[in-house]
Amino acid sequence: MITRDEQREAQAYAAAELEACGIVLTDAERSAIEVADFGLSRLREEGLMVLVYVNTDRYCAKELVLYPGQTCPEHRHPPFDGGAGKEETFRCRRGRVSLHVDGSELVLGPGEQFTIPPDTLHSFTAGPEGAVVSEFSSTSRDDLDVFTDPQVRRETVVA
Amino acid sequence: MITRDEQREAQAYAAAELEACGIVLTDAERSAIEVADFGLSRLREEGLMVLVYVNTDRYCAKELVLYPGQTCPEHRHPPFDGGAGKEETFRCRRGRVSLHVDGSELVLGPGEQFTIPPDTLHSFTAGPEGAVVSEFSSTSRDDLDVFTDPQVRRETVVA
Repeated sequence: MITRDEQREAQAYAAAELEACGIVLTDAERSAIEVADFGLSRLREEGLMVLVYVNTDRYCAKELVLYPGQTCPEHRHPPFDGGAGKEETFRCRRGRVSLHVDGSELVLGPGEQFTIPPDTLHSFTAGPEGAVVSEFSSTSRDDLDVFTDPQVRRETVVA
Repeated sequence: MITRDEQREAQAYAAAELEACGIVLTDAERSAIEVADFGLSRLREEGLMVLVYVNTDRYCAKELVLYPGQTCPEHRHPPFDGGAGKEETFRCRRGRVSLHVDGSELVLGPGEQFTIPPDTLHSFTAGPEGAVVSEFSSTSRDDLDVFTDPQVRRETVVA
């Protein structure tokens, strides 16, 4: 659970970080930035801010914004609707992000990218200056994500 | 046909425009920017500069850069491999781009986007300051594009 203030503060942080990357947002997008605490109630440590540009039944594009040191907890994207799970390419725009994929770690800086195969366990953590990461992928079905920590809830409750 | 100088100049222009958007490129990416004249030999009027971030068998992401007033000639993305043709979302990052889709025109400025259905005739023209456009899509198969102008050749010859 997060408070309304935490949500507003995180949206403002994410919008400012995206603008610092030169990304122009509409007002509607700024207020649609998702603030996810994964049900763990420690947003600054485990959480993620997400702006979805488009998500069709074929492809998806998002911007991901992380606070300094913030981690998106380990999860995988399982197969669905008779197809493979979500395949996704992370491209770092600003700051630094450590990707943990299937037991290996790699660090991406601005202009570096990596593609995570479907149904593969991964987590990611921002460096000390936070991170902005573009995500290009097949269709996104966040509701189907399988997290390693059984306490995770993908839907964020705002108090 | 374009000259090697035209190609180099267009790559440098595109790289500078992308950097002006805050987009960080690697050296390898800068020199991999495609300069397409569509076989028409009048690059500044009809042409396009393209940086492909990723193109898997499920999705694709690119940056498109246009000179001021430059047009990408009318074409459509037909069905292939038993699936629908390419579906694509254009998001304007910088400048202005006029999209002509199936007889209608709409103008996108920074932060505005539009999704073009598969197999739908479209062309686009940059405004007087040029344009940078992010393209999010299903798999890209440029070799299958069907252009209205029979003189178009998708492969660019560099003299």
